[in-house]
Amino acid sequence: MSLQSIKYQRGSLEILDQLLLPVVSKYLPVRGVEDGWKVINKMQVRGAPAIAIVGCLSLAVEIYPEEFSSKKSLRQEIEGKLNYLVSARPTAVNMKISADELITLANELTKDDAITVGEMKQRFLKATEAMLEKDIADNRAIGANGAKAILEHVAEATGVATAGPVRVLTHCNTGSLATAGYGTALGVVRNLSELGKLEHVYCTETRPYNQGARLTAYELVHEKLPATLVLDSMVAALLRVKNIAAVVVGADRVAANGDTANKIGTYQIAVVAKHHGVPFYVAAPLTSIDLQIPSGDHIIIEVRPDREMTHVGEHRIAAPGINCWNPAFDVTPASLITGIITEHGVFKPEALKAEITKLLGL
Amino acid sequence: MSLQSIKYQRGSLEILDQLLLPVVSKYLPVRGVEDGWKVINKMQVRGAPAIAIVGCLSLAVEIYPEEFSSKKSLRQEIEGKLNYLVSARPTAVNMKISADELITLANELTKDDAITVGEMKQRFLKATEAMLEKDIADNRAIGANGAKAILEHVAEATGVATAGPVRVLTHCNTGSLATAGYGTALGVVRNLSELGKLEHVYCTETRPYNQGARLTAYELVHEKLPATLVLDSMVAALLRVKNIAAVVVGADRVAANGDTANKIGTYQIAVVAKHHGVPFYVAAPLTSIDLQIPSGDHIIIEVRPDREMTHVGEHRIAAPGINCWNPAFDVTPASLITGIITEHGVFKPEALKAEITKLLGL
Repeated sequence: MSLQSIKYQRGSLEILDQLLLPVVSKYLPVRGVEDGWKVINKMQVRGAPAIAIVGCLSLAVEIYPEEFSSKKSLRQEIEGKLNYLVSARPTAVNMKISADELITLANELTKDDAITVGEMKQRFLKATEAMLEKDIADNRAIGANGAKAILEHVAEATGVATAGPVRVLTHCNTGSLATAGYGTALGVVRNLSELGKLEHVYCTETRPYNQGARLTAYELVHEKLPATLVLDSMVAALLRVKNIAAVVVGADRVAANGDTANKIGTYQIAVVAKHHGVPFYVAAPLTSIDLQIPSGDHIIIEVRPDREMTHVGEHRIAAPGINCWNPAFDVTPASLITGIITEHGVFKPEALKAEITKLLGL
Repeated sequence: MSLQSIKYQRGSLEILDQLLLPVVSKYLPVRGVEDGWKVINKMQVRGAPAIAIVGCLSLAVEIYPEEFSSKKSLRQEIEGKLNYLVSARPTAVNMKISADELITLANELTKDDAITVGEMKQRFLKATEAMLEKDIADNRAIGANGAKAILEHVAEATGVATAGPVRVLTHCNTGSLATAGYGTALGVVRNLSELGKLEHVYCTETRPYNQGARLTAYELVHEKLPATLVLDSMVAALLRVKNIAAVVVGADRVAANGDTANKIGTYQIAVVAKHHGVPFYVAAPLTSIDLQIPSGDHIIIEVRPDREMTHVGEHRIAAPGINCWNPAFDVTPASLITGIITEHGVFKPEALKAEITKLLGL
């Protein structure tokens, strides 16, 4: 079973405290909205989908044992507390989107005279729990689609009927610690392992925040997958000597033409993969693909504080007085991307817009 | 004036303590061979040429005030103490080569009846001091040759008579803190600045030992050069958006065909430079070019301990239990190298063997 960063059953929620990782593995109980606000605000939970799901589930846990005198009072409780949860990290847009969806649902249920207050509560709990289940189910589908695509590519390239176990490389953290569970790019790695087709996975350190060394490595060690950490500077040397079958990374945002914004360093890995003839895949749920953005040129790159680069904790690692350039993301052009792995299949970047339009019935 | 890591005048030697950098800048007096052994052994001085020169100068400082009753006793002192200095870091081959050269000189002078003991001491001091002067002079020549080549390339590529100030990128530390002074690749940067032709220099962090962030950044801040630190993962993004005129790096060892072993990450930068059409130069003195090595395939890459990657000082930054791959160097194939900058000129890799053979009169 893959690492669980969110443990939920009706009336009970615990999260793995990411501030203590990778050295200490401790689950924190989230007993209600107050706790939910705190773990989001203190970044004990991180990753856009995970924040939204923990926020909404913290409300589900709080509401579950309560008795409500009227649908109106339940609706007020839902709306007030969801808006409070959004304030824990206003930049986490997924929390806002999920809150708006649930508030809309609560309004509809309030207006529907065929439904009692007890039924309304049940419907609300189920809708919240469905978010958790859907995120994990989508990630499992991404994992299966990606593993299949990688193995088919290897079989075709080597002229065999069925590819043997493969070596892959991933960047940053896209696993259970960034999603509701299983992960996107790391879900592909997990699926390869479940199929008995993972010979080895390499993960990059991912400076400056070291999500690869701290979080991906933690997940890989936890699940005893055959794994090795490399530095961000070693990708070219690795692809040259270690017979890597594919690179698979996540996405912050995919534009309509397939250009992909993702953690800094992704573009460099794509260039290096192209040079070595190694296929380069982006794993992303449909919610990360934004057809309103025509191309990567329209994606604004956040530049973050120097201190992330010059210090590790309180320890200074760079010369005092040096300027830094610290873009949080870069844009990989579609031309370097072999395929975009979604829960609905793997698409070539140039086919992405048409395929997604069809899927969404636009 | 460029940063002085070695301050010498006859009878007096001080070195910048590299263990305290970049936070504290403190010069240590080296009063003789005992001090010389200690600063080499404790890595307060680093870089192959710098180690050799500090070792030999520590003997010069010790011998300078002494009176010797005979040439034989002076010869014994020289041989014994140089061999002792070699033992401080047996893997530093330059120290051994320099010691052998000086011992040969001492033997010749001892046999030459036309020379007194006083003259022998003077000749020995001069030979030692010449090593310091030659290393700096060679680096200055590398700097001038490299700057000229970069500016000519830009002028040609842009169709102007004289190139304006340029932006360059360098990797690791190849400056005053790795040589007797001025530096190789960083010497090229210094020369561009002296010519008024340095718009900006970017330096990579250079994980895992952070020589770029700690040492190169220190030198650039010290000399107030317009400089910015980037992470190893950012090179592709940098070359895409910042109009970089050239990459210039050092070399651990250059093979006869131009293949170059250098700090891990160099090969990746060369791949990325090629992709962006940015010229990629290797700056190396003739002593780093080994015509006995036919190609990079014959260079054995040292794999270093995991701990360098998993810890910063005592601070653990990677998940406990994760495997690491930590090659200290990689090999950049000659096909990715625009030119090899030496003290005798800039050579295309394919012409290197013939040019060096001619220069050395082989």
